[in-house]
Amino acid sequence: MASSLDDYEQLASLLLPAGVRDFVAGGSGSETTLRRNRSALDAVTVTPRVLTGVSSPDPSTRLLGTPAAMPVAVAPMAYQQLVHPDGELALARAAAHAGIPYVISTLSSRPLEKIAAEATTWFQLYWLRDRSMVESLIDRAEQAGCAALMVTVDVPVMGRRLRDVRNSFQLPAEVVAANLVGARTEAHVGVAGASAVATHTASAFEPSLSWNDLEWIRRRCRLPLVVKGILDPRDARCAAEAGAEAVVVSNHGGRQLDGAPASIDALAAVVEVANCEVLLDSGVRSGTDVLRALALGASGVLIGRPLLWAMAVDAAAEALGLLTAELTQAMMLAGCATVADVAELTTGRA
Amino acid sequence: MASSLDDYEQLASLLLPAGVRDFVAGGSGSETTLRRNRSALDAVTVTPRVLTGVSSPDPSTRLLGTPAAMPVAVAPMAYQQLVHPDGELALARAAAHAGIPYVISTLSSRPLEKIAAEATTWFQLYWLRDRSMVESLIDRAEQAGCAALMVTVDVPVMGRRLRDVRNSFQLPAEVVAANLVGARTEAHVGVAGASAVATHTASAFEPSLSWNDLEWIRRRCRLPLVVKGILDPRDARCAAEAGAEAVVVSNHGGRQLDGAPASIDALAAVVEVANCEVLLDSGVRSGTDVLRALALGASGVLIGRPLLWAMAVDAAAEALGLLTAELTQAMMLAGCATVADVAELTTGRA
Amino acid sequence: MASSLDDYEQLASLLLPAGVRDFVAGGSGSETTLRRNRSALDAVTVTPRVLTGVSSPDPSTRLLGTPAAMPVAVAPMAYQQLVHPDGELALARAAAHAGIPYVISTLSSRPLEKIAAEATTWFQLYWLRDRSMVESLIDRAEQAGCAALMVTVDVPVMGRRLRDVRNSFQLPAEVVAANLVGARTEAHVGVAGASAVATHTASAFEPSLSWNDLEWIRRRCRLPLVVKGILDPRDARCAAEAGAEAVVVSNHGGRQLDGAPASIDALAAVVEVANCEVLLDSGVRSGTDVLRALALGASGVLIGRPLLWAMAVDAAAEALGLLTAELTQAMMLAGCATVADVAELTTGRA
Amino acid sequence: MASSLDDYEQLASLLLPAGVRDFVAGGSGSETTLRRNRSALDAVTVTPRVLTGVSSPDPSTRLLGTPAAMPVAVAPMAYQQLVHPDGELALARAAAHAGIPYVISTLSSRPLEKIAAEATTWFQLYWLRDRSMVESLIDRAEQAGCAALMVTVDVPVMGRRLRDVRNSFQLPAEVVAANLVGARTEAHVGVAGASAVATHTASAFEPSLSWNDLEWIRRRCRLPLVVKGILDPRDARCAAEAGAEAVVVSNHGGRQLDGAPASIDALAAVVEVANCEVLLDSGVRSGTDVLRALALGASGVLIGRPLLWAMAVDAAAEALGLLTAELTQAMMLAGCATVADVAELTTGRA
Ligand SMILES: Cc1cc2nc3c(=O)[nH]c(=O)nc-3n(C[C@H](O)[C@H](O)[C@H](O)COP(=O)(O)O)c2cc1C
Ligand SMILES: Cc1cc2nc3c(=O)[nH]c(=O)nc-3n(C[C@H](O)[C@H](O)[C@H](O)COP(=O)(O)O)c2cc1C
Ligand SMILES: Cc1cc2nc3c(=O)[nH]c(=O)nc-3n(C[C@H](O)[C@H](O)[C@H](O)COP(=O)(O)O)c2cc1C
Ligand SMILES: Cc1cc2nc3c(=O)[nH]c(=O)nc-3n(C[C@H](O)[C@H](O)[C@H](O)COP(=O)(O)O)c2cc1C
Repeated sequence: MASSLDDYEQLASLLLPAGVRDFVAGGSGSETTLRRNRSALDAVTVTPRVLTGVSSPDPSTRLLGTPAAMPVAVAPMAYQQLVHPDGELALARAAAHAGIPYVISTLSSRPLEKIAAEATTWFQLYWLRDRSMVESLIDRAEQAGCAALMVTVDVPVMGRRLRDVRNSFQLPAEVVAANLVGARTEAHVGVAGASAVATHTASAFEPSLSWNDLEWIRRRCRLPLVVKGILDPRDARCAAEAGAEAVVVSNHGGRQLDGAPASIDALAAVVEVANCEVLLDSGVRSGTDVLRALALGASGVLIGRPLLWAMAVDAAAEALGLLTAELTQAMMLAGCATVADVAELTTGRA
Repeated sequence: MASSLDDYEQLASLLLPAGVRDFVAGGSGSETTLRRNRSALDAVTVTPRVLTGVSSPDPSTRLLGTPAAMPVAVAPMAYQQLVHPDGELALARAAAHAGIPYVISTLSSRPLEKIAAEATTWFQLYWLRDRSMVESLIDRAEQAGCAALMVTVDVPVMGRRLRDVRNSFQLPAEVVAANLVGARTEAHVGVAGASAVATHTASAFEPSLSWNDLEWIRRRCRLPLVVKGILDPRDARCAAEAGAEAVVVSNHGGRQLDGAPASIDALAAVVEVANCEVLLDSGVRSGTDVLRALALGASGVLIGRPLLWAMAVDAAAEALGLLTAELTQAMMLAGCATVADVAELTTGRA
Repeated sequence: MASSLDDYEQLASLLLPAGVRDFVAGGSGSETTLRRNRSALDAVTVTPRVLTGVSSPDPSTRLLGTPAAMPVAVAPMAYQQLVHPDGELALARAAAHAGIPYVISTLSSRPLEKIAAEATTWFQLYWLRDRSMVESLIDRAEQAGCAALMVTVDVPVMGRRLRDVRNSFQLPAEVVAANLVGARTEAHVGVAGASAVATHTASAFEPSLSWNDLEWIRRRCRLPLVVKGILDPRDARCAAEAGAEAVVVSNHGGRQLDGAPASIDALAAVVEVANCEVLLDSGVRSGTDVLRALALGASGVLIGRPLLWAMAVDAAAEALGLLTAELTQAMMLAGCATVADVAELTTGRA
Repeated sequence: MASSLDDYEQLASLLLPAGVRDFVAGGSGSETTLRRNRSALDAVTVTPRVLTGVSSPDPSTRLLGTPAAMPVAVAPMAYQQLVHPDGELALARAAAHAGIPYVISTLSSRPLEKIAAEATTWFQLYWLRDRSMVESLIDRAEQAGCAALMVTVDVPVMGRRLRDVRNSFQLPAEVVAANLVGARTEAHVGVAGASAVATHTASAFEPSLSWNDLEWIRRRCRLPLVVKGILDPRDARCAAEAGAEAVVVSNHGGRQLDGAPASIDALAAVVEVANCEVLLDSGVRSGTDVLRALALGASGVLIGRPLLWAMAVDAAAEALGLLTAELTQAMMLAGCATVADVAELTTGRA
């Protein structure tokens, strides 16, 4: 049994093929941003309050209008069957069990409808070159009952992830992009010295999106709209103007532009100007990290890799339970009865 | 023979069971705050003065009105019999020998009256769910001649200390909470993957205290009142308003909210607003550290773990003698005749 | 096949004699500045923009009026035959292939005319004691079709490079300063505990140059003039006043004054006051590094050692291709269509 | 042959007894200040100037009116016979050879008159409890032709140097305090767990000096007066008011108050207020370090340990030659013709 979310990485590493482990763990370039996500979070101090009369803190909240047992959603992550035979279904069930939203990736290895049946979900959209496919995905997500649409804007092309390049990483035959027509793709064709997943992305994704396209989506789709992958406050303002209900301050877990700031370091400036809800991801690993993000102004966080590691050892629900417990306890120790109280805490940098 | 307080940890580690060693040494979560306590103290520079005509500095002072041979008190620490058969008695004797106050923990493994007979003591109060027990403890402390009441406010629940969780740490049968009715408790019942001490705390402590409760104590108790576990200046002000004579700026030695600031980093802001005496603990390991805290505005410090390590090798008095010598020498080298002079030194961060 | 420019150092180290490897890799003194070049670049964050509608970024630009397929030129580096039998010809061909300028060192091991025939080149001038040789070099560069004259001003004497001193480094007989009369020099005569290359430089270079000399060159030479080796903004201003079209902010790859600032840290202040184009070198190793320099105001960079390592394994063209790909991708991920857009990105220090 | 001053420590460590090596190398307490002396110097950047027309920089200067071939004096260091049979004579000869002042320690192992015969010297005074001895030392120094009197004020007692404590360090019989009556002292009597040298100092030195005593010296002695061991700008002002011609910003090489700032970090504030010459020591190891100190406002530096290491391998003159070469070259690379030019360079912190 794990005693912290970090433990799952160790445990999963014993089981997973090295290529898969690296695909999940890796970042882009020299992984500067990947490492900085952690060092920046570690440097944030949160000053607890005392004697506030809290007996049992309530970590529940609403994220984008969706009720959530804690201010955490499962980050959209592609191809979850890589780490567990049940793929997305397993992790969605764990999210449902924990009472938090699960974000379905465009590149899920199970059909979005199947996943949406398991939990409160949001649908994450990658913009495909084929606009009719985009329309179809949005419609399917609405019909499947997804509660929000999350448009990921930081992947015009995939970041250069050297681990995958060195491993000539490709998807195993049984893991497919289940939502796409022609699910077997370049992602399954190994090329020495290249990432097949990146090759597929390059051919399938539309790289040249603009705010006009986002407005088009805004008109096209009734669901609350979240723009994922914002770091510059100017873009946060654009997102709100284009009609987004929320942005996710994110560097994609250090997987896109190496050299981008840690998302926790970018958060406060975005919160200051954004006229919308602000979520954060990239590097969150504990209840204390959630507290840090909330204290710096986020309304919630997405959490990615730790849940894949946990899932690999059949412990995703346990991991989310642990995170809930950690956050509840951190709130207790910080004297916060509610998620709103956390925003009143003083933060610093050590 | 040890030449610095840090040496005792090495020496004691050879003797103590691993579970006990970890219980004493450990912090909560990923131990960020535990480590930062040291790195932050190490970063504080104190600029010495010269030719001040000091021939033999006098480290003596008053802490909360109690005369003290140096501006140091022994921090309240539970279950001292874990490290020495005489438990609290041994460490209280060493404090008496060194001429400094000894703080008796609510969770002492010897009855508070026995300990109070050995030294000038203060009594540390954890708020138990059973308010009649709280009243009884306060009364007993007053009657036993304790010179102050220290209310610890940073343990609504115990921090998640992963070492204890991983060790499934429980108290040995012979070590009990001697001041409590029903001294044998959940703390003695091992549970795999959990800290029995934390379980006991959760069931015994009242988590939802407020400033009203502190005011109730203030009315109930004639002794000088100290609030231990303050990091936010707003809380220091509340404490003084509620009638406390002093606060202890403390993160509980990095054992409660992981991610809290180092207490030395929180000190100056508290000193600035507090209308009362300000003590500090968490990480103090040498005469230079005492000097750092005084130069930043504390009137004194509490010292914890090093004295348990020393006690484990029957050297608590020696350790306090060493600390006195170090502080006296540091004052000498800084050109300070008295404890008050130290507050005039310039500090910096390296 | 390498997946990042850093890989070439490992690969080349297997092939090159230790003395040559150290001559290339080393810096001066305790190599503080050498290390800082990297740590300072790593600390620069660049905040990407999103949804800018870029489909295929164009990294092409003009450097000093010379068209360049990306804002990168090959730094002038002496004696390239040390790492490859074709010497400068091989690297110039790679530059031509990549569509970027190649800077010919005064100390090239092939005659400048031969090199200039292979690529768009600039000529780097070291000031020799014999002024008629300087005149002749300038004339030869003009006649050979070099497109700019780069005067290196940070080598009045060679920095004390301890690796070369410890290796008693000397040039092998077949590697000569092909542009100089009497190409076989002190650089070929080993002296225990000394760098023969430094000895040669000391005897051949004129150490006491002044801005008057630069003005003399300005009058003497029709080509665009670049002053290489500027760190102080006051000197950047002098350079522009003396008629230079550009300066290179550079600490010579940490090989001259140990203790000098990282060039990336010196860049912004130079850009602010310089009335001319500003290039940068020293430590650039990736597309992200180029982005960092551009975002901080450089119009381009020079890149040195990585190309020698790549050349040693016959992969200089590959390396430049990789760099182009990295930069294009970094621009894409940062939402930049053109090199000019990069200057609008926000930078920070982590 | 060494290629940097640091090399001598390695070389000497092979020869010297461990106790002596530690006595020389060690600092006080946890050696925080000792380490910081280096890390702070390493962090200082100096921005070179170019094209200043310097052909051969002149490092010569005057220190306290004494002509010096470079802005460096040999720091006063006790008991030099510990590392070389000729003791102080050997190092004084090296200083004379290098053309720089040698500072004779009160605790020299050869009589001050013998040392003064070998070089331009200053005399360093420790205040002995026996004031008649102090008077006699001052008179002897004047008569022996010492050119300045340096009063060390940061040793009211010796810092607690744990290496010496752990080694129970004592002087070998043949090494004595040759200037003192009763040269064989407590310093020769080993006590387990104590430094015999510290014990001797405690009994011989007068701890309670004040500015009045300095004024007394000022009246008593015709030589230029230097106060060594200043870190607080307020003390620098006092020193000038008491009639000192100079102060040495120094933390005694990290051997006195552990936790004191690095002397290079304390320098600028002292320079700003001091109405006198300002020297610096503690951690200087290279020509670049000298440049750093001068650029931050010192008129010169003292250098300690590296010369003992060099002396131990009969290379003190070589070491000083190396330092002169390094400084001359650093000046050249920074574009400085004279020591005064160095003060115009821009400094920063990396
Ligand atoms: C294996 C993996 C796959 C991912 N797939 C997607 C995806 O399909 N869509 C998306 O928007 N983000 C994707 N991400 C990024 C995550 O949504 C999230 O931004 C990131 O993982 C957060 O950082 P963390 O893993 O440090 O918590 C993926 C991340 C990983 C690790
Ligand atoms: C083993 C142990 C037991 C402790 N028990 C108590 C306690 O019963 N009551 C309390 O207020 N603090 C307790 N503390 C916290 C200490 O009073 C003090 O805040 C902390 O140890 C100071 O940090 P230091 O150990 O780094 O000096 C305990 C600390 C340790 C290490
Ligand atoms: C082996 C070597 C030889 C060099 N020779 C010259 C030269 O002849 N002329 C010159 O101006 N700079 C010379 N330099 C400095 C480079 O032009 C450039 O400033 C430096 O290498 C940039 O740093 P980088 O290697 O970290 O990219 C040389 C550098 C190296 C590593
Ligand atoms: C072995 C040793 C002996 C010393 N003895 C004296 C002394 O007798 N008087 C004095 O003023 N300083 C003494 N010092 C301090 C030096 O003068 C000087 O402040 C210090 O060594 C400078 O730092 P550095 O060794 O890092 O260059 C001594 C230092 C050492 C290392």
